[in-house]
Amino acid sequence: MTTAETTSQVKQWTNLAQQLRVDSIRSTTAAGSGHPTSSMSAADLMSVLMLSHLHYDYDDPKNPANDHFILSKGHAAPLLYSMFKAAGAITDEELLTLRKFGSRLAGHPAPELPWVDVATGSLGQGLPISVGIAAVGKYLDKLPYKVWVLLGDSELAEGSNYEAFHLAEHYKLNNLVAILDCNRLGQRGETELGWNMEAYAARARGFGWHDIIIDGHNYEEIDEAYRQAAKVTDRPTLIIAKTIKGKGVSFLADKDGWHGKPLTPEQAEQAIDELKPAARSMVYPVQKPAPAQPAPLGEKKPLELPRYELKSSEATRKAYGDALVALGAANPRVIAMDGEVSNSTYANEFAKAYPDRYFEQYIAEQQMVAFAVGSQVRDMIPFASTFAAFLSRAYDFIRMAAVSQANIRLSGSHAGVSIGEDGPSQMGLEDLAMMRTVYNSTVLYPCDPNQTAQLVAAMADHGGISYIRTTRGKTPVIYGPDETFPIGGSKVVRQSDKDLATVVAAGITLHEALQAYDQLKSEGIRIRVIDAYSVKPIDDETLLAAAEEAGGKIITVEDHWPEGGLGEAVLEAFSQAEVPMPQIVKLAVQSMPSSGKPAELLEAAGISAHDIAQAVRTLVK
Amino acid sequence: MTTAETTSQVKQWTNLAQQLRVDSIRSTTAAGSGHPTSSMSAADLMSVLMLSHLHYDYDDPKNPANDHFILSKGHAAPLLYSMFKAAGAITDEELLTLRKFGSRLAGHPAPELPWVDVATGSLGQGLPISVGIAAVGKYLDKLPYKVWVLLGDSELAEGSNYEAFHLAEHYKLNNLVAILDCNRLGQRGETELGWNMEAYAARARGFGWHDIIIDGHNYEEIDEAYRQAAKVTDRPTLIIAKTIKGKGVSFLADKDGWHGKPLTPEQAEQAIDELKPAARSMVYPVQKPAPAQPAPLGEKKPLELPRYELKSSEATRKAYGDALVALGAANPRVIAMDGEVSNSTYANEFAKAYPDRYFEQYIAEQQMVAFAVGSQVRDMIPFASTFAAFLSRAYDFIRMAAVSQANIRLSGSHAGVSIGEDGPSQMGLEDLAMMRTVYNSTVLYPCDPNQTAQLVAAMADHGGISYIRTTRGKTPVIYGPDETFPIGGSKVVRQSDKDLATVVAAGITLHEALQAYDQLKSEGIRIRVIDAYSVKPIDDETLLAAAEEAGGKIITVEDHWPEGGLGEAVLEAFSQAEVPMPQIVKLAVQSMPSSGKPAELLEAAGISAHDIAQAVRTLVK
Repeated sequence: MTTAETTSQVKQWTNLAQQLRVDSIRSTTAAGSGHPTSSMSAADLMSVLMLSHLHYDYDDPKNPANDHFILSKGHAAPLLYSMFKAAGAITDEELLTLRKFGSRLAGHPAPELPWVDVATGSLGQGLPISVGIAAVGKYLDKLPYKVWVLLGDSELAEGSNYEAFHLAEHYKLNNLVAILDCNRLGQRGETELGWNMEAYAARARGFGWHDIIIDGHNYEEIDEAYRQAAKVTDRPTLIIAKTIKGKGVSFLADKDGWHGKPLTPEQAEQAIDELKPAARSMVYPVQKPAPAQPAPLGEKKPLELPRYELKSSEATRKAYGDALVALGAANPRVIAMDGEVSNSTYANEFAKAYPDRYFEQYIAEQQMVAFAVGSQVRDMIPFASTFAAFLSRAYDFIRMAAVSQANIRLSGSHAGVSIGEDGPSQMGLEDLAMMRTVYNSTVLYPCDPNQTAQLVAAMADHGGISYIRTTRGKTPVIYGPDETFPIGGSKVVRQSDKDLATVVAAGITLHEALQAYDQLKSEGIRIRVIDAYSVKPIDDETLLAAAEEAGGKIITVEDHWPEGGLGEAVLEAFSQAEVPMPQIVKLAVQSMPSSGKPAELLEAAGISAHDIAQAVRTLVK
Repeated sequence: MTTAETTSQVKQWTNLAQQLRVDSIRSTTAAGSGHPTSSMSAADLMSVLMLSHLHYDYDDPKNPANDHFILSKGHAAPLLYSMFKAAGAITDEELLTLRKFGSRLAGHPAPELPWVDVATGSLGQGLPISVGIAAVGKYLDKLPYKVWVLLGDSELAEGSNYEAFHLAEHYKLNNLVAILDCNRLGQRGETELGWNMEAYAARARGFGWHDIIIDGHNYEEIDEAYRQAAKVTDRPTLIIAKTIKGKGVSFLADKDGWHGKPLTPEQAEQAIDELKPAARSMVYPVQKPAPAQPAPLGEKKPLELPRYELKSSEATRKAYGDALVALGAANPRVIAMDGEVSNSTYANEFAKAYPDRYFEQYIAEQQMVAFAVGSQVRDMIPFASTFAAFLSRAYDFIRMAAVSQANIRLSGSHAGVSIGEDGPSQMGLEDLAMMRTVYNSTVLYPCDPNQTAQLVAAMADHGGISYIRTTRGKTPVIYGPDETFPIGGSKVVRQSDKDLATVVAAGITLHEALQAYDQLKSEGIRIRVIDAYSVKPIDDETLLAAAEEAGGKIITVEDHWPEGGLGEAVLEAFSQAEVPMPQIVKLAVQSMPSSGKPAELLEAAGISAHDIAQAVRTLVK
């Protein structure tokens, strides 16, 4: 650029940055809450990005060639919304609805806004999610789009970011540029590292990233850093920008005590005076991406699920892997990821069949779920697996995935005490409760490999957060390969017109229930046995019918803690129906298990065939 | 040492290391499962540690002067148990009970064994917990003990470790020595970094740690590294030891496919032949610590809880902070930590009053919970706080704290939609379910500051994992400061002999219920209102009495998703009792909230006074 061009460019960057600051102040003052100062520190960074580097068509947010911008420091939402206004995407009137009931402009960004890929606000999630988007961009879409993510400095205390640093380097994501808005001040005081820019750089280098330290208020430095980042071909870049919280206003700049506080109208007026904006509601030209289409992914094919012979036996976790391979063959958008236990979850079968669509996450469950969320931003159909117990590591990410309206599929293997010798650290005993409580979730727990295969297929077509719980050991095949298992359904596997009680089971306990059935039948006691493979939504109708037809006595049995799982789902089904509540006895794991053989542990937990039979006898006597 | 001494020392290190290898093989072969090869890689590291650097009295595991050893790679339990045998703490006979039902020697270590501080097996937890122990050692106990932690290389993908790196450096924990058993092979293949020792070192340096790279099978190098680490005065040390998985046996060493697999008896015999152990069951001399006592912590004093005037108003989160300060004055073992939101949770009041007993964790919730777990190993009474929503970040740590039989106290503020404008990312809406499902947990949800203060005091004396949920906004004081609120109790706040239904509420919804009561009363409809402040254990007796006396109709109302919270706890109470189930209507948050005023959001969620009144009218008509 000539000097004149540079001067003109700097003037435009300045004008936009000041407008972003002014709008961040105006909108939060109008709202009476929010984060003006955390927005102001990054205004210069965002001005240069938006005007000169971000390729984004605000009229066509689904354009596959668009860059992606993730505001990881979601509390700086006023800045983001001010950018939308400056791009002409929203009006000034809408901007001033910030945080008001019914407005799309929530306190933290969410995908009600078409320009927002994912919800943020739980810190430390933006970077791991960006890794998922960038990996799809580089390896599947094969498009030149970049993923830009704005990080706060406080959030670099979250370990999840280092899972992302790790994985982004592993996948050589040069299309990922993280911008650290290092404004020194956290919510309650200084961050641990303050303005120690070199410490952040050392961390980035320690993880194999390219690092650039800049003054986050020097436009030329910012511009040059973005240029440099774009040129790196083999690894991601962290731009560490030294900034000032509340920059541009004397009584806010670098002052403690202003985090998350709006200005009064008088203070706002004074601040805006100081900022001297060239314009208040200018719409700025943005850079649209060059038209481009994702790499072709191959044709869809009819789904041919694996089939298991009746009376043979197979582990449901193995059926998960088999079904995933079948899905992969049928639909090129199906991708898989796993937390370094793919030979246990059987995701390794998919990895072998479709190495290009398998993304190893190593032992980093937060990153794994975030990767799934990122990938579905680009319309992939992600399946992510680990031990059920270790999905608890990613619960905040799963919770936020629901806020993001993401469509992701999770598989948790090694559920319950039935895993045996490994002991309680490896036993998923809270996963049903955890997953049931996620908004718009589906919770499936098959007992048989044919059922598993059908349910895995159903998950691919299902929206929201879906979860399948699988079992470590082999279990008998009790359903033919052509039976169907709709989400929200159940199977009545034993019944007669003389049933005295109903046992509701799922997964491993269904097989215990069938043994109890045989024992009780030999004693002349007939029971109904329901396979509640769809724990959420649960099949109210079949449960209600069972209660009416089979003595109003129900026993639920689950390889899970007593709270929040199958038993409570059944209770809930009855409480929502306007029928008399049956007598319900719940069998569940009541004390901390140890190691032992699966059968010993089922017995010790009081959820074995023997315990079920005994509970029935007591209930019907 | 003279050359002769060195030779003799090396011989002893060798002998012990080989015995540890042999015992790791023997015990897993006897068990038919387990991790011999992951044990063998670290045998030399452990031999030198145990014989020459660990100061530990196996006869007195509660000795305050003992060093602490945390096996973060918990699957190497056979190695740990072999060390216990070599120290004479357990017999060879007991060693061979590994993984058997009823044995103390579980698949992963747990505190059933007196020499095990905390359970491990969920990777990436040992280091964060060690930070808690080391911080107590340095700042409260002021004892010279060291905390040694053995890490696997695979687990360094877990972000939680970097939260620990961060905090350990911040607190300058030179008494913390992490030993990385870098054996290159994970469960399903090579780790991302393989034997790139320098990459691990760069990460450690990036976080300000002292780093030492060694050959993990060279005794002198190991010994020298431990010596060096002991001399560092201002920061923690990471010893990066290049090791070979399955070291010492030709067909195991550095071979893929042996993770988590025991040898057959024949293979075991062959392996032991190769290892040529000098002895099989030698008991080795260990180094006891020099006698020492923790620094005196000051006297206990009578507890003087804060008192709030009836008819004033105060936020329960504020009362949490006030009560914590009172507890801090009464009991010098009470400590607090917070995830960089202490001015929101009001833990900052404790931080100001007792800065020496407050440990800032920055935005690192996993580290925060781990710190609490670590501190209680040294008998502190930790209270850890953040937003309720963000405790979901640490769920795996909370789950494992229960396996560790830890006594920790958690406070989650900003519960539910009632927080208002910040939106769903900041709203705890699954915390009740999440915490109820933790083994041996206590879940409290006060509606009033006097009640909060009493419950916080009760938590200090209570074992297991206890959780208190607090509300952001101010609520009216409805209880006098001398009322008592036992854990497991409830309060009937409105009742008459003409009650037609019962509303069960807690926290913010209790106040909505009271408004509904007034409205309904004016219409001639009398209801009972129960404050179920103890969500777990719940007060079955009062609920049952209400159902019997007040029309068999119950409405539960909670600022939480419908699953796993107060409503299901109430259902559960009735299902466990042998009484007819009342009609139960559950009001809860059914759709994804956005931003807005608290009252608008309560209304939108259908849990406001208006909704409660309407539900009562429908139910009793």
